Amino acid sequence: MLNTLIVGASGYAGAELATYVNRHPHMNITALTVSAQSNDAGKLISSLHPQLKGVLDLPLQPMSNIREFTDGVDVVFLATAHEVSHDLAPQFLDAGCVVFDLSGAFRVNDAAFYEKFYGFTHQHPHLLEQAVYGLAEWNRDALKDATLIAVPGCYPTAAQLSLKPLIDADLLDLKQWPVINATSGVSGAGRKAAISNSFCEVSLQPYGIFNHRHHPEIVTHLGTPVIFTPHLGSFPRGILETITCRLKPGVSEPQIAAAFNDAYADKPLVRLYDKGVPALKNVVGLPFCDIGFAVQGEHLIVVATEDNLLKGAAAQAVQCMNIRFGFAETQSLI
Amino acid sequence: MLNTLIVGASGYAGAELATYVNRHPHMNITALTVSAQSNDAGKLISSLHPQLKGVLDLPLQPMSNIREFTDGVDVVFLATAHEVSHDLAPQFLDAGCVVFDLSGAFRVNDAAFYEKFYGFTHQHPHLLEQAVYGLAEWNRDALKDATLIAVPGCYPTAAQLSLKPLIDADLLDLKQWPVINATSGVSGAGRKAAISNSFCEVSLQPYGIFNHRHHPEIVTHLGTPVIFTPHLGSFPRGILETITCRLKPGVSEPQIAAAFNDAYADKPLVRLYDKGVPALKNVVGLPFCDIGFAVQGEHLIVVATEDNLLKGAAAQAVQCMNIRFGFAETQSLI
Amino acid sequence: MLNTLIVGASGYAGAELATYVNRHPHMNITALTVSAQSNDAGKLISSLHPQLKGVLDLPLQPMSNIREFTDGVDVVFLATAHEVSHDLAPQFLDAGCVVFDLSGAFRVNDAAFYEKFYGFTHQHPHLLEQAVYGLAEWNRDALKDATLIAVPGCYPTAAQLSLKPLIDADLLDLKQWPVINATSGVSGAGRKAAISNSFCEVSLQPYGIFNHRHHPEIVTHLGTPVIFTPHLGSFPRGILETITCRLKPGVSEPQIAAAFNDAYADKPLVRLYDKGVPALKNVVGLPFCDIGFAVQGEHLIVVATEDNLLKGAAAQAVQCMNIRFGFAETQSLI
Amino acid sequence: MLNTLIVGASGYAGAELATYVNRHPHMNITALTVSAQSNDAGKLISSLHPQLKGVLDLPLQPMSNIREFTDGVDVVFLATAHEVSHDLAPQFLDAGCVVFDLSGAFRVNDAAFYEKFYGFTHQHPHLLEQAVYGLAEWNRDALKDATLIAVPGCYPTAAQLSLKPLIDADLLDLKQWPVINATSGVSGAGRKAAISNSFCEVSLQPYGIFNHRHHPEIVTHLGTPVIFTPHLGSFPRGILETITCRLKPGVSEPQIAAAFNDAYADKPLVRLYDKGVPALKNVVGLPFCDIGFAVQGEHLIVVATEDNLLKGAAAQAVQCMNIRFGFAETQSLI
Repeated sequence: MLNTLIVGASGYAGAELATYVNRHPHMNITALTVSAQSNDAGKLISSLHPQLKGVLDLPLQPMSNIREFTDGVDVVFLATAHEVSHDLAPQFLDAGCVVFDLSGAFRVNDAAFYEKFYGFTHQHPHLLEQAVYGLAEWNRDALKDATLIAVPGCYPTAAQLSLKPLIDADLLDLKQWPVINATSGVSGAGRKAAISNSFCEVSLQPYGIFNHRHHPEIVTHLGTPVIFTPHLGSFPRGILETITCRLKPGVSEPQIAAAFNDAYADKPLVRLYDKGVPALKNVVGLPFCDIGFAVQGEHLIVVATEDNLLKGAAAQAVQCMNIRFGFAETQSLI
Repeated sequence: MLNTLIVGASGYAGAELATYVNRHPHMNITALTVSAQSNDAGKLISSLHPQLKGVLDLPLQPMSNIREFTDGVDVVFLATAHEVSHDLAPQFLDAGCVVFDLSGAFRVNDAAFYEKFYGFTHQHPHLLEQAVYGLAEWNRDALKDATLIAVPGCYPTAAQLSLKPLIDADLLDLKQWPVINATSGVSGAGRKAAISNSFCEVSLQPYGIFNHRHHPEIVTHLGTPVIFTPHLGSFPRGILETITCRLKPGVSEPQIAAAFNDAYADKPLVRLYDKGVPALKNVVGLPFCDIGFAVQGEHLIVVATEDNLLKGAAAQAVQCMNIRFGFAETQSLI
Repeated sequence: MLNTLIVGASGYAGAELATYVNRHPHMNITALTVSAQSNDAGKLISSLHPQLKGVLDLPLQPMSNIREFTDGVDVVFLATAHEVSHDLAPQFLDAGCVVFDLSGAFRVNDAAFYEKFYGFTHQHPHLLEQAVYGLAEWNRDALKDATLIAVPGCYPTAAQLSLKPLIDADLLDLKQWPVINATSGVSGAGRKAAISNSFCEVSLQPYGIFNHRHHPEIVTHLGTPVIFTPHLGSFPRGILETITCRLKPGVSEPQIAAAFNDAYADKPLVRLYDKGVPALKNVVGLPFCDIGFAVQGEHLIVVATEDNLLKGAAAQAVQCMNIRFGFAETQSLI
Repeated sequence: MLNTLIVGASGYAGAELATYVNRHPHMNITALTVSAQSNDAGKLISSLHPQLKGVLDLPLQPMSNIREFTDGVDVVFLATAHEVSHDLAPQFLDAGCVVFDLSGAFRVNDAAFYEKFYGFTHQHPHLLEQAVYGLAEWNRDALKDATLIAVPGCYPTAAQLSLKPLIDADLLDLKQWPVINATSGVSGAGRKAAISNSFCEVSLQPYGIFNHRHHPEIVTHLGTPVIFTPHLGSFPRGILETITCRLKPGVSEPQIAAAFNDAYADKPLVRLYDKGVPALKNVVGLPFCDIGFAVQGEHLIVVATEDNLLKGAAAQAVQCMNIRFGFAETQSLI
């Protein structure tokens, strides 16, 4: 049994993490914590997330000193803001924990990236070096002995799962940048009071055009520029990405299908569509990323869906943990 | 042309009021104001309510002294919180304006009511005496020379329009209290940042059971006790009320139909259903209150729908204004 | 391992049943069937319900003769229309199967009930006699050796779970009929093409006032009259019932709490609220019925929520099956 | 007063047309018709579209012979399927009516287009020659003496309004085809019973990739190829299009703004955003097309929104009619 601490358990991804870990036969929750300043400190997680009532009624403990929570802890999930993860991850690593960070604090091994897109000077460049990017289908081997796993953002997960097989198989004419149109449910903005996510204000709308932080994350890990336009959609959960690419001359539909099959035939959390493309509802509440495509001449449309809180956050974190500790990859996820 | 000031124009009801007044052929907007402390001061109303872009691009002016806004003003709409209306209404009356207040500050002529349900000591008992309750279909005559009109709450409007004809015709056995189950869209909570009205948190749920402020407003004006259970629904606008009553022995369906017809045959904003009951969507965006009913034995179910921001607020205020100044009752509303 | 057949697996409840049975460690799906005339015959269940892709890709087999499907089958779930269940249940019983019927065909032991409310002459009065009503929390003992289990309707489950403890404890003044206002998601209407359930037509609306088939089911099993007003809500899943009752003189809040606690303290799928009342979202996707209440004077409001497809259908059927065969009551449900 | 006939008035666009015409001071509805075979024949339009109750309670008359409806009629709106419009338009023209067709039957002056994309042989090539494409902002002069006006499709309206100013100003590098990602509300599929538009089945999903009929309509009228990917969104009304283009080298943001301003400064139904981009809700229920954009380097994102039933159908038809008959362009629309 792995003793497990979940930090930042009051948010939507935190609640999903707690649910997965709670049902995992080889894991044991030692504590759920929130910031000592949080209004939620002391409350039951099930009072914030009442679907958990009777299932998981643990308190959200205020954490000011991590040492009060690390005794005997094997695994830490950080479902915290990037600046919090940046500060806490080294402390938990020092305490001997394996750390799964769901924030952006360690996703790109480039201090300049943090200056530019996150607006701060990263203090732990050696950890950027050491961190393994938890895009589980693509980094299985590296995950097996990682101690700091940077779980990818929700948009980048679907984008990379869609594009990496095609880029690796050299099928795309990348001089014409892939156009990623992505629409996310409102939970992507986190659990917070804001006019912008209040019920009557939400409707389908692009945001963060040309300046969303997930854009450089995608570009860095793909190694090629893309155009990325995120949208807010009027639904609670899920992401759908419609990706328009130019194929190299002569590339045929079977080559595209083969590229996806080669990449994902043995990957249980990616579901490929032989024909047609996925709808958002196919994946809401599920840990999958669904991928389908259509091709005409030199034009390729790839459509990928995932639950932003699951394959885009909590499920992928647990998937990485399963790989890291040698459990079945889908343990407690399906 | 009536010069018109709209105070508290940044909210949802304020925006609807501004829209109606803007299209009214006999009215002229002199200013839209918000509290001097508001973050919205100085912004265009169309930046907060972008459906108004190109239609009404006036600024929301900060108001600290009403005298800067009253020159030549004939009509003031107060779309403000009850404590603000309580303080401002007497000042605007002193300045010679006719005041339409959409808050609860002057709806019940009973200072004890305010102590008990609103938690403050009312400072203007003479205005409580003087105020006309703007349930337009029932107070037409009194409205014609009113100077302070207390526009009813959204829930009380539908409840009273449903029950008053039946009570007046003496058809109900009121020893068994009518049971009013009401469901309102989220805009009823106002335009504000709050976890409780954030997109992912809203779902169908009762609230304020036995202690909603609209309960005593309904009871006072009906003159008979009721059970009132409001619910929040996961839609932006509209109210549906399902009201279960006990009939006096021998009361027949035609008597009920006659009571409604007698009350509303010449009232253009109440639409009666000969058969069936209304759905919420029938009235969203429209100034009507729709009423239908079903009867079996001694049991009567009345169903009423309205748009909480329109017949439940802005449209009723303009309806009262039309009556007050002798315009067609539905001018600029239909 | 129980060999299990699911008849009528193409609908929403059928898909949920298949999901539960598929993950049950002591059950084995022998076949999923649909009517031989169905357009869905031969399709994969995952093509109709794409959330099941990769999880359960079995075909929907056309069934014209049940004998082609009964070899070695222990358990049959009928997720079929009542007239189909009426005809098939005796055949499956003859074949030695234990039958869990999710339709209304065997819920009330009264042939006149079927004449009046379902419009047909019941051909199997001995089965009405024999059938056990699967309101699991209340019929545990009878379920243990039942062969025909009539799983309750979605509305009656929440209504009875709310009212039975109070009636049994003699806390209600039943001369004043309890008023049940219930709102259900659209999936309650089944998976079908109809204008009435098309996306743009759905909005909050009462229907079936005084003549819904679940009304007499509730009345019969409670043994006391009620007023029942169902509503369609603009959400896919879930039921919320707001039940207004009159208490006997002198009944206190602790007595009510005690009645609920006595009934459900050891019942894992009913979750009681110490304070406050449940919201719809608390139970969507979950097998629970959540119950809370508020009291003032002689008036009691009970609020119950459930997922209409789960505790109101598939989860309750599996719960009954678990009890029937001695498995843990929540096996594969939580 | 123009006597006006609305054919196909039972659908969503038909109901919006009827609403506009009904409030138009220079128009008079002579009849609303539906196919003689329609189940809706004889019903009141307000029974199908209950928001019209008390506002417009005319019957939907079955039409088998147009001559029963053409006496004295000046204007005909065809809100019918393209094959119906194809057959009826010549008859109404012969009867001396000015015809506004909302279908695709006369939008492209190319018989081969109909063979290929609509699957039939067009019988009226002279009318294809004669028809004026009712993209109102771009064809004002031609509209003024047109007798057959082919009102554009909902997707093409937003796409062309976005791209034509840029193409005309020669700002785009069109070798890289513009990528149009469009999401439409469910009303775009019409008022009909179908599993695919039933409430529980709808979720965000692309459809018609590479083969939607609006694709060649856009390409033909722009005169340049594009990639067009339509999506169904889980909302009743509205279209949002996110269009990704490549600029010619050196094109600057002010040039783009100037192109839009030159095109639309005097066009009341196109609203340009100085900064930011529109949200869907800004236009729902309104006759506008809202356009905003963002630029970075050689990449341009244009975002356009409209109500698919209004600027994408009924409002544009009435706008064309206003222009044709010399009324104010926005008469009865704003």
